[in-house]
Amino acid sequence: MAKTKKPRRPQARPPRGFRDYFGAEVTARKAMLDRIAEVYALYGFDPLESSAVETVEALGKFLPDVDRPNDGVFAWQEGEAADDPGDWLALRYDLTAPLARVYAEHRNELPTPYRRYAMGPVWRNEKPGPGRFRQFYQCDADTVGTASVAADAEICAMLADVLEAVGIARGDYVVRVNNRKVLNGVMEAAGIAEDDERTRGIVLRAIDKLDRLGVEGVRALLGEGRKDESGDFTEGAGLGEAQAAPLLRFLEIGLAVGGKDTPGGTAGQPPTSPREGASAPTQVGDRPSGSAATLQALRDVVGASALGAEGVDELEKIAALLDAQGYGPDRIVIDPSVVRGLGYYTGPVYEAELTFEITDEKGRPRQFGSVAGGGRYDDLVTRFTGQQVPATGVSIGVDRLLAALDAKGRLGDEARGPVVVTVMDRDRMADYQAICATLRQAGIRAEVYLGNPKNFGNQLKYADKRGSPAAIIQGSDEAARGVVQVKDLVLGAKLAAEASLEEWKENPSQAEVPLDGLVAHIRKLLG
Amino acid sequence: MAKTKKPRRPQARPPRGFRDYFGAEVTARKAMLDRIAEVYALYGFDPLESSAVETVEALGKFLPDVDRPNDGVFAWQEGEAADDPGDWLALRYDLTAPLARVYAEHRNELPTPYRRYAMGPVWRNEKPGPGRFRQFYQCDADTVGTASVAADAEICAMLADVLEAVGIARGDYVVRVNNRKVLNGVMEAAGIAEDDERTRGIVLRAIDKLDRLGVEGVRALLGEGRKDESGDFTEGAGLGEAQAAPLLRFLEIGLAVGGKDTPGGTAGQPPTSPREGASAPTQVGDRPSGSAATLQALRDVVGASALGAEGVDELEKIAALLDAQGYGPDRIVIDPSVVRGLGYYTGPVYEAELTFEITDEKGRPRQFGSVAGGGRYDDLVTRFTGQQVPATGVSIGVDRLLAALDAKGRLGDEARGPVVVTVMDRDRMADYQAICATLRQAGIRAEVYLGNPKNFGNQLKYADKRGSPAAIIQGSDEAARGVVQVKDLVLGAKLAAEASLEEWKENPSQAEVPLDGLVAHIRKLLG
Repeated sequence: MAKTKKPRRPQARPPRGFRDYFGAEVTARKAMLDRIAEVYALYGFDPLESSAVETVEALGKFLPDVDRPNDGVFAWQEGEAADDPGDWLALRYDLTAPLARVYAEHRNELPTPYRRYAMGPVWRNEKPGPGRFRQFYQCDADTVGTASVAADAEICAMLADVLEAVGIARGDYVVRVNNRKVLNGVMEAAGIAEDDERTRGIVLRAIDKLDRLGVEGVRALLGEGRKDESGDFTEGAGLGEAQAAPLLRFLEIGLAVGGKDTPGGTAGQPPTSPREGASAPTQVGDRPSGSAATLQALRDVVGASALGAEGVDELEKIAALLDAQGYGPDRIVIDPSVVRGLGYYTGPVYEAELTFEITDEKGRPRQFGSVAGGGRYDDLVTRFTGQQVPATGVSIGVDRLLAALDAKGRLGDEARGPVVVTVMDRDRMADYQAICATLRQAGIRAEVYLGNPKNFGNQLKYADKRGSPAAIIQGSDEAARGVVQVKDLVLGAKLAAEASLEEWKENPSQAEVPLDGLVAHIRKLLG
Repeated sequence: MAKTKKPRRPQARPPRGFRDYFGAEVTARKAMLDRIAEVYALYGFDPLESSAVETVEALGKFLPDVDRPNDGVFAWQEGEAADDPGDWLALRYDLTAPLARVYAEHRNELPTPYRRYAMGPVWRNEKPGPGRFRQFYQCDADTVGTASVAADAEICAMLADVLEAVGIARGDYVVRVNNRKVLNGVMEAAGIAEDDERTRGIVLRAIDKLDRLGVEGVRALLGEGRKDESGDFTEGAGLGEAQAAPLLRFLEIGLAVGGKDTPGGTAGQPPTSPREGASAPTQVGDRPSGSAATLQALRDVVGASALGAEGVDELEKIAALLDAQGYGPDRIVIDPSVVRGLGYYTGPVYEAELTFEITDEKGRPRQFGSVAGGGRYDDLVTRFTGQQVPATGVSIGVDRLLAALDAKGRLGDEARGPVVVTVMDRDRMADYQAICATLRQAGIRAEVYLGNPKNFGNQLKYADKRGSPAAIIQGSDEAARGVVQVKDLVLGAKLAAEASLEEWKENPSQAEVPLDGLVAHIRKLLG
């Protein structure tokens, strides 16, 4: 035979920006998603699992928050046949666009309102970076088909319940609520015309940068513009001082409520309690979540704007609904400092923030920050049907929330490996498998060592790598007597690190156990 | 402003061959996958969630069972930049190819052997058809890095446990085990040279068609060839009668064990017990799963082939290991009639079949058939590393298994909707939300009606659509007295269908309940 050229071997790596998840990483996320799904279901939300692939046409040409054309998604042409190349298809980039498509398609069969939750991976064709992946989980709940702010209040309450269900203690989080209509009212008060989209756009982007630039930076962007440290100039909205004043006042009300300061100031500060200016502890229902003072300040700043007043009314209603259910300001606050997403949403906007401190990559303490956000949007299906269908919903940042639980040491012991039954005698594999079967029937994770049994040390190293709590050993002598040796690997590791020579010699981490007492012994060992 | 042309509205539909899953469809599958994952974990398997997207290079150019070039997958070019278009990427078409990539990449850190399970969607760019979707779930468990048939036996036992865990009763399924080495031994006995790939290929494909064509059809394909009903001629292997004899004998042993007959014969037959020719009931461990008779018959047919004898030895060992753990022939049988996958696998091959009858689309009774399959393959990472790493694994057909459970009426009541609190007085929304909060705190799914409350009939229709077990009603009169009306919608529907006028008038499906007794009342109602 003719010698053929050796093909180059493929590289064993995932595509750039993608990663794999192993063992406890998978189970910890699953456990968290399960708990979230339980809360969503308790609130009457039904699961929806839409296809991961959508037509580009149905998906729409823009990512929700991004001002650029159709990149950002992974797309391809179906390519069924040369004469019929088929649709352009793409991986979903979030769970809201598929909800829009599904709702438009099935609106006549679905209940009105339709409460649905969805959890699963989404894909973004973006430049990958450290900790920034092109496939990640989203976990959304939306209520479609009702304009009632009771739906918004409900989602805020649910968000608080979700955080507690996954292990964030009360006091370690706060759900903040704002309203786009209030901001629009403030713009009206500032005399910015409703159809002056250019100015409104610049104002929205400026406000969105409050966290990064502080009040002075935003003030510059509302006026003539701002030169950053590198010397680059960003054009401003060109508002006069009198016009900018209500906008800045709006931001200041937010900063007072949110306890936030200009940038740079937060990092070194002790964690601020997300209360409305008060430092004394409050009890549930002790004080309304939307304090009269905040709401009054907002009423003042929107002035004569009917839209602004409507926005403040909505916030007041939300606060009253939450108070009636016992969600006080220790959990949910009306907070005009929430600016993220204001440009995207059309009514109430909400954000969940973790308020405890972690240490950032530079060793500085900082607050953990946002783990979920959402709000009301009234154009969910307009693209498909031409109708305005009111909807409100929340998206939980699954990976950030997992990182937070990890930082708090609350991820549980999902990582515990199986009991390993070692192989002393290759011909008695059936006995070892039978021991495993007995343990499994008692609900105990167990496996036989299936590598080369020749070197016993390798078997124990394997058990170690597996995170096994115990190894079971049975030579022919033990088999004849109907017993096994059980090595407690957790205690063994502890002894190896700490024990005196005498303790070590006693070898308390190994015990001889009759076969019929094995399950009870292992159960005790597992605690 | 110049009038712009109205853009065409996008169609609200998923891509061809894709579908969405709603409510109970999602929860039923999730419940099943959860139970399977529990069994996998009990056996010491660890979860792996690899990225849904792989490089085309890593994925390989062929689907495992398909003789055609790189179509069948959804692929696209990364397209990062004009001068660096990036990798060709594709959606995974199964969970084995990603396992190969992950194992090749991480083999030095992973334990040896590595037991992993994976569950999730896979994508095939195939022509969609009725019930044939381009995105579907797979649910795999594989053991990588051991040549021991104890690994194969373990997976067969696990497969039996999985089926029982999801609700298939013992007796309603059987796991059948065969071995590619036995077939190779038979080919050797038939005098087909090891490097005669053409003949071996035709023989494998012919055997794979046994179910469809019967023994006579296979006989023709082993010989000169076969003309089908349409007149198309399929070329045969060209074996003489003496050469074909051991192959046909091998198939006949299988048919005797599997209780199968030539095609057409199975449909009308009573469900055959998957026993080894016996009709009397057997007990667990009563008789070895690989009956001496079957194994002896296989020894005879492989003749002097060392490889064939090795294959029979392996089957004997698997049977002994399973017997020792109590997996008798009522659950797992050695069965040479398993031919599916023989061309793909290199050693033991196994298949789980449901043995109860269902009615097919033409109203004829037929056995449900295969729901899982797997086997041993020794070339998992060869493409990446050049090394042969032995591996064995199983894939469960999640959707088929769900269909089977559905057919058996064993899908549970995951579909039960939430209690609906109706809105009699729009201004007392806070009270209704508070009632919901009380129910949820007791773990009862509950929601307030958030549609337009004007028409009360619509509220009850909504509750009906939601599958609600109960509706709660509180007007101002009830509120003043601290009570609610509870409508038992399940009983109500029953009465509406069956009740006499007297029964109907008594209205036993509605009760007045004090607010502080509501949780207890609903709990009793839910049963």
